Amino acid sequence: MAFLPHLESVVTQVDGAIACSVMGFDGIAVETFQAPQSADLAQQIELNSAWVEYGNALSQLKTGADLLKAGTIAEVSINTEKLVTLMRMVTPEYFVVLALKPEGNYGKGRYVLRITAPKLKAELT
Amino acid sequence: MAFLPHLESVVTQVDGAIACSVMGFDGIAVETFQAPQSADLAQQIELNSAWVEYGNALSQLKTGADLLKAGTIAEVSINTEKLVTLMRMVTPEYFVVLALKPEGNYGKGRYVLRITAPKLKAELT
Repeated sequence: MAFLPHLESVVTQVDGAIACSVMGFDGIAVETFQAPQSADLAQQIELNSAWVEYGNALSQLKTGADLLKAGTIAEVSINTEKLVTLMRMVTPEYFVVLALKPEGNYGKGRYVLRITAPKLKAELT
Repeated sequence: MAFLPHLESVVTQVDGAIACSVMGFDGIAVETFQAPQSADLAQQIELNSAWVEYGNALSQLKTGADLLKAGTIAEVSINTEKLVTLMRMVTPEYFVVLALKPEGNYGKGRYVLRITAPKLKAELT
């Protein structure tokens, strides 16, 4: 279960990345890589509290949307003026979450999560 | 309250747009513009059911996230293999939602919703 190199790779590839984490739907982070230069910002916006709240919403959404004809949820993004958050399903129990500054590279973030999710899944199984 | 020209403008500007709607957090659509060529697709994926479910999630998320230091929610995106959905707050009671095909222009969709939300807000007040 070597998650950290994958998470570090996400953060270093995406401009404006604050931190990337593998989380369970119980709200507990399995592993996190934080951009060293963004530690103050993460503390200031209470990143962990936001992630627990968002993960909880994602969990409810996943359950509620399972029966929709539009298909199962693959990716959710929640954005405020201070924080952009991208989440992508890894397995039914785990997801990967990436926090960006609002001016960060959103498109690159989506792309990198999409290619990283299968690698994280391989580590989980 | 002339919403329709704004909604039509969103759908025509964004490649792959299926429909755009102003919705209340009670899950009721105030007004909707649907791309004429996408009526079959919207029916097939039961777009309205998805929107009610997503709007419900957005409502819960908005309430839960109000006290977070990361700031209030401005924009949420929920994506499946069949459907991309962008939602943006208009007022505390209403939001605008745009459904796209997965191959649609996501970045343009985000941009157009951002500039359209204030116009819709002006119609609501």
